[in-house]
This record gives sequence, C-alpha cells and structure tokens, in this order.
Amino acid sequence: MHAVEVRDHIMIAHSFKGDLFGPAQALHGATFVVDAAFFSRELDENGVVIDIGRAHEVLKEILAPLNYKNLDDIPEFAGKNTTTEFLTRHIFDRLNDAAKAERLGRKAGEIASIRVTLHESHVARAWYEGPAG
Amino acid sequence: MHAVEVRDHIMIAHSFKGDLFGPAQALHGATFVVDAAFFSRELDENGVVIDIGRAHEVLKEILAPLNYKNLDDIPEFAGKNTTTEFLTRHIFDRLNDAAKAERLGRKAGEIASIRVTLHESHVARAWYEGPAG
Amino acid sequence: MHAVEVRDHIMIAHSFKGDLFGPAQALHGATFVVDAAFFSRELDENGVVIDIGRAHEVLKEILAPLNYKNLDDIPEFAGKNTTTEFLTRHIFDRLNDAAKAERLGRKAGEIASIRVTLHESHVARAWYEGPAG
Amino acid sequence: MHAVEVRDHIMIAHSFKGDLFGPAQALHGATFVVDAAFFSRELDENGVVIDIGRAHEVLKEILAPLNYKNLDDIPEFAGKNTTTEFLTRHIFDRLNDAAKAERLGRKAGEIASIRVTLHESHVARAWYEGPAG
Amino acid sequence: MHAVEVRDHIMIAHSFKGDLFGPAQALHGATFVVDAAFFSRELDENGVVIDIGRAHEVLKEILAPLNYKNLDDIPEFAGKNTTTEFLTRHIFDRLNDAAKAERLGRKAGEIASIRVTLHESHVARAWYEGPAG
Amino acid sequence: MHAVEVRDHIMIAHSFKGDLFGPAQALHGATFVVDAAFFSRELDENGVVIDIGRAHEVLKEILAPLNYKNLDDIPEFAGKNTTTEFLTRHIFDRLNDAAKAERLGRKAGEIASIRVTLHESHVARAWYEGPAG
Repeated sequence: MHAVEVRDHIMIAHSFKGDLFGPAQALHGATFVVDAAFFSRELDENGVVIDIGRAHEVLKEILAPLNYKNLDDIPEFAGKNTTTEFLTRHIFDRLNDAAKAERLGRKAGEIASIRVTLHESHVARAWYEGPAG
Repeated sequence: MHAVEVRDHIMIAHSFKGDLFGPAQALHGATFVVDAAFFSRELDENGVVIDIGRAHEVLKEILAPLNYKNLDDIPEFAGKNTTTEFLTRHIFDRLNDAAKAERLGRKAGEIASIRVTLHESHVARAWYEGPAG
Repeated sequence: MHAVEVRDHIMIAHSFKGDLFGPAQALHGATFVVDAAFFSRELDENGVVIDIGRAHEVLKEILAPLNYKNLDDIPEFAGKNTTTEFLTRHIFDRLNDAAKAERLGRKAGEIASIRVTLHESHVARAWYEGPAG
Repeated sequence: MHAVEVRDHIMIAHSFKGDLFGPAQALHGATFVVDAAFFSRELDENGVVIDIGRAHEVLKEILAPLNYKNLDDIPEFAGKNTTTEFLTRHIFDRLNDAAKAERLGRKAGEIASIRVTLHESHVARAWYEGPAG
Repeated sequence: MHAVEVRDHIMIAHSFKGDLFGPAQALHGATFVVDAAFFSRELDENGVVIDIGRAHEVLKEILAPLNYKNLDDIPEFAGKNTTTEFLTRHIFDRLNDAAKAERLGRKAGEIASIRVTLHESHVARAWYEGPAG
Repeated sequence: MHAVEVRDHIMIAHSFKGDLFGPAQALHGATFVVDAAFFSRELDENGVVIDIGRAHEVLKEILAPLNYKNLDDIPEFAGKNTTTEFLTRHIFDRLNDAAKAERLGRKAGEIASIRVTLHESHVARAWYEGPAG
C-alpha cells in the first residue's frame, strides 16, 4: 500500500463539558499540527498517490473554517466536545467528501483510505483512519 | 479506527548477551522516549478514546519500575536480553493489564488494540502493536 | 558558557487587538511548547548548571496560572496583546524572579542568563533571552 | 506484531514529466530522510526483529546507488517519474530482495512485511508498505 | 533580546567543484528546510518583533527564485559553490535588504540582527547570523 | 558569523553521587544525541565552514571511547559526576583539540568557537559553547 502525507496547522479556542476534563473545562486553546495521509493501492499514471500541492490546498480549505476560531461558537459543533479525537474524525469526513467529489485528482475509489493525525503538544496526539468512499 | 498517543521517557542501563550485539554486550544505557497509543473503534460519551491525563499517569506508573534502573538487576528480566523490542512488548503487556483492569477509564473491550513505540536514538526505534484484552 | 534547557507546554485561548493580526483578532488559541534555558559560566559542585528536576518544577509552577486559561481574562494582561513574544518575556521575568530568589538551587548571580522559547506551530516560534539577576 | 525502524538519508537531483508537477518539471532536487521498518511476528533468539546495525548497513548499501546522483541519468529509471512514492517502492523492492536473500540476518519468511518512508520536507512524506518475501 | 523565527523549505539541484566534496561533485540535490530568525531589542506597539505572516511572505518571495531550480544555472551563482553555508548568507543578504527597505513592517534599525538556518538532513545544518541594516 | 552543525549519538551507562540526583544516583543510562557546531567568521575557499563529512568523522572518533560504555569505569572520569553538562564540556575539549591540531581541515584560528549540545530526552538538553583555540 502506498501513502502520501501532508502537514498544516490550525490555532483554535474551545472548552469541554464533563468532569473528566478537569481544568480543560475552562475556555482554552490549542495549536493542532495536522497530518493528512492518503492511501492507494496503485500509483496513478504520473507516479503519485495524489499531487501533494493539491493535497495541501484541499487540506487548507478544509481547515480554514476552524482556523482562528472559538469552536464553541460553531453551530455544527453545538453540544459536542471538540476533542482532538472528535476533530480528527471531522477533518477525515471533509477529506473523504473531497475524495468522493474527486477534488483530490484521483478517481473515486482509487483512494483506499485516509488518516488524519492531530498533534496537540510534544507529548500527545490523536488520529482517525478509515476507508475512503 | 480512532487512536490517541501519549509520550514519556525512561533512562536505563543494561547489557546484552550474544555476539550479534558487538560493543553493546558491555554495560551501557539508553534514553527511551516511549509513545503509548490506544486504539478504539468508537469514542466514549466524552468524545475521547481515553483521557490523556489518565493515559499519562498509567504510562508513568508502568515505566517507574524501569526508570533509573540497571535492567540487568531486575529479577523478572533474568536471562533475557532487554532489547528495545523486548521492552516494547513488556510495556505493552503492562498497559494491556491496565486496560483489562479498566484502569484507563474505558470498559474492557472498548480499547481495541495498543501500540508501544520506543525511540532509542534519532536513527532507530521499535514498536509492538497487538490487540488489547 | 554552559546551558541546560527543559521543556513543558501550555494550552491557552486569547485574542489580539490591531489590524496587523487579521483573523487572529478573533478569539482563538495555541499550544505553546515552552523551552526554558539557563546559562552559567561554571558548573556547581554537583557538575550541573541547575538540577533539571528543579527546573521542570519551577517552570511548571510558572506556567500553571496560564495553562488552560483564556489570557484575555487575566487582569495582569489587561490592555496587552499576549503575543508569543510577549509571553516569552512574561515567563522570562517569572523565571528570573525564581533565579533571584534562589528557588532554582543556584546562588543568585551564578545563573548568568535565561532564554525562553515558545514554539507555536511547526513553522513559527519566538524567544526572549536576557541576563539574569 | 513487532517492528524495528532505522533512518538514513540521500541527496538527489531529478525532474518530472507531466503538467501536474508544475515547477517541479524543472531539474531540482531533494534530501530524502529514509526510514526503513521491518515487521516480524516473533523476535529471534537474541530478542530482536533484526539487528539494527545490520539494518543500517543494508539500507546504506541500497541507498548508495541513488545518493549524490541525478536520478534522470539512471538507466533503470528511464521513462519513469522518480517521485517520492516511486522511490519508496524502489527501496522497498531492494530491501525485500535483501530479506529474501537473508542478508538481514533473519530466515526468509520471518520478516513479515517492510515499510519504507521518505520524508521530503517538514510538511510532506510518503511511504510504501507491503508483505515481504 | 527578542526573536521570532519562521520556517519554509526549498528543493534544489546543484553540484560542487573541489576534491573536498567527493561524490557531491556530481549533480545532486537537497531539500533545505529554512528557518529565518529576526531579532529586536524591543517589541513594536503591537507586541511583536515582526508580523509572522509578513515574515512568511517575505521569506517565500526570497526563496522563490531558488525553489525547484538547478542552482548551477543561476548566473548570479556562476563560479561559486552553492554550499549550505553559502546559501545561508545569500538568503540572509536578501532578508537584510527586505529589512532595510522596511518590507518586514518594522522601521529600519529596529531589527537588530537576522539568522538564517538551513537544515539539509536530519544530521546536518548550517546557519549565518549577522547584524541587520 | 557562519556555523555548521553535525549530529551523532552515544548510548552510555553511569551513576551520580549527591542527594541532588535522587533516583539518578543508581546506575542508569542515557542516549545522548550529540550536536557539534563549528563557528567561523569567513568561509574557506570551498565555501564551507568545515567539511561536514570530516566533522562527522572527527565527532565519531571523539565519541567512540564513550559509546557503549559505563562511564563510571573510565579512569579519566573518576570522582566526577558525568552529568550531561560535564559531558558537553568533555566533548568540547576534544573537538577543540582537533581544531587546534587542524584535524577539521581549517587552519588553527579560523574556527572561532565550538558548541556541543547533548539531548538527553525529548524534554531536556544541555550545551557548552566556548571560543576555539
């Protein structure tokens, strides 16, 4: 299996609901360094999984509505804890939409799976990996 | 599949038996930067795989008996080469015990698998990944 | 000149005032990975600049009032832009206070200077370095 | 599953054919930091996946014909785009040859799979992972 | 002294003249991860050394004529070895021109010095630091 | 000022004397990732500070007597705490000897200063910087 991965980042504010989160129940924030990996069984006729320039652009578009935002104010996230894990899945879903819409430059079905990793500090990160399509 | 990973480190001494190891047959040591990853199919009601504070604590407890030790002196390791690979499995087993005892804050069975990575230098690392439970 | 440096991190929310900041005028946040370096001309009788365990503790104490906070709500920072640069100086001042109060385990005057680095993403960081005392 | 991974690097020139590549159609170059990971279900009698010294040597031998070269001049690559993805597969194939020839110090069949990662910058990397043998 | 540093990268081909360079006399290439640091004694009225968005833009403009190029073909570099060290100074000079022309958003003279670091692999890097203006 | 820096590593055992060291008074060990930086005001006729191949070789030679050793058994270190700080100075002195003996390929006096950094974990490092010659 081939894979290619590109990196970007976002800087967001949010708060969590639930005793589990202790001091993170207060409004705080994070820099998430975001890695988006795309897997395919075969390379395309150019010899790539997907063009990494395109991958960077699509990732940046998907991150834009989150970047420099207070996630507590985003209606789509109302009633949710926007944990690192939650966000990996959110970004995965958007990237998967882009794959299905062939905005990544490969035919639908040629991208086998996608993995989104969010690094929240030098000692913690989370990722979500699932089949594309 | 979701995953969350936390990082800690230990500083140990040890020696190896076997010509394969060349100069590493002498007593020497290592800093192991340890990454412990926990995988689950679904997030819990808080929106996390496991609480990373809890993950850090459990990892630190499991590493404590190794940290600042000469592993050659630990009875449990007698007759074993405490290689990086061996230690990844040892720490995996302890983390898996913690998962089964529900000390990680998820019900037994909700953690699907665990991966332990030990970075021994900027040019070498090892990991062990297996199903939990 | 000798130096020793320890690392910790904080996760904060804040907003900036001024057109310069563009979208960062909105409430957002950051993970700051914080490196605190201490310089001394001579090692002490134990052969260290300062004990790194102590350094980690003092740094953590100084970061605690910032961690998991909305910096816009901290009275001391009222009317200030809590930029990465501003925070490097703020943390420097607190560490310098600790050095002068000999809470770092060296006599006042034996720590020559201090440098505080804040990494805000994989592509941007800031630091402040100045004489101690 | 156990794994061990070693790191080396190469510095190469090349050019790409195809509008997709934009400015990278011109002769340019790259440092590829190369990670080679070897997976095995069981450790050998020494307690390792493979000897990392041996792994470093074999990787270096395999990289030598590429290092400090213009890949456009290598007959084997004629008519190919030597993309990061293409090179991960090329190096994988050579490592797999070494595994089958038992040059890695494990019996053929004991190395389950191999993964080759090429980091081309701080924001992009690619890998190929496949069964060995 | 305050400092802020931003990161970008270029991918170039080149060759060297001189027995010292051994195999690097052949046409090869490199990814240079480039860090540009700007030092100032005082923060400006916004609380920054310079705007990091502006810093990223100016750095990208200065790197553009080098990126995806064979440096052997650039007339300005004729008869020079475009070593990592040479390039740190070249980029420094361009950044210093930008500082003097006040394209970095601070008054000439308020940027005290500049440092340019080029990482050529995970085991080698070079930098040039000098007064601005 | 120009600088070039190369990286290698050692894996050692040792123990410390003094209550300050707490659990590190026991025999333990460390991987030290070692960065050696060489500063010069001018580049040589080849356009380098020093040849990085040469720098890597000399650093490796200097580290060899430490690598895979129990530092408590090295007569030269008897009665000393071989702290990270102590070792930065020890390696600095050997590199400075090499510089003075012109084993680094620059004339004595052309290397202005040397800095040795030892990374002992992902959260702690130390360095020593001083004039060469």
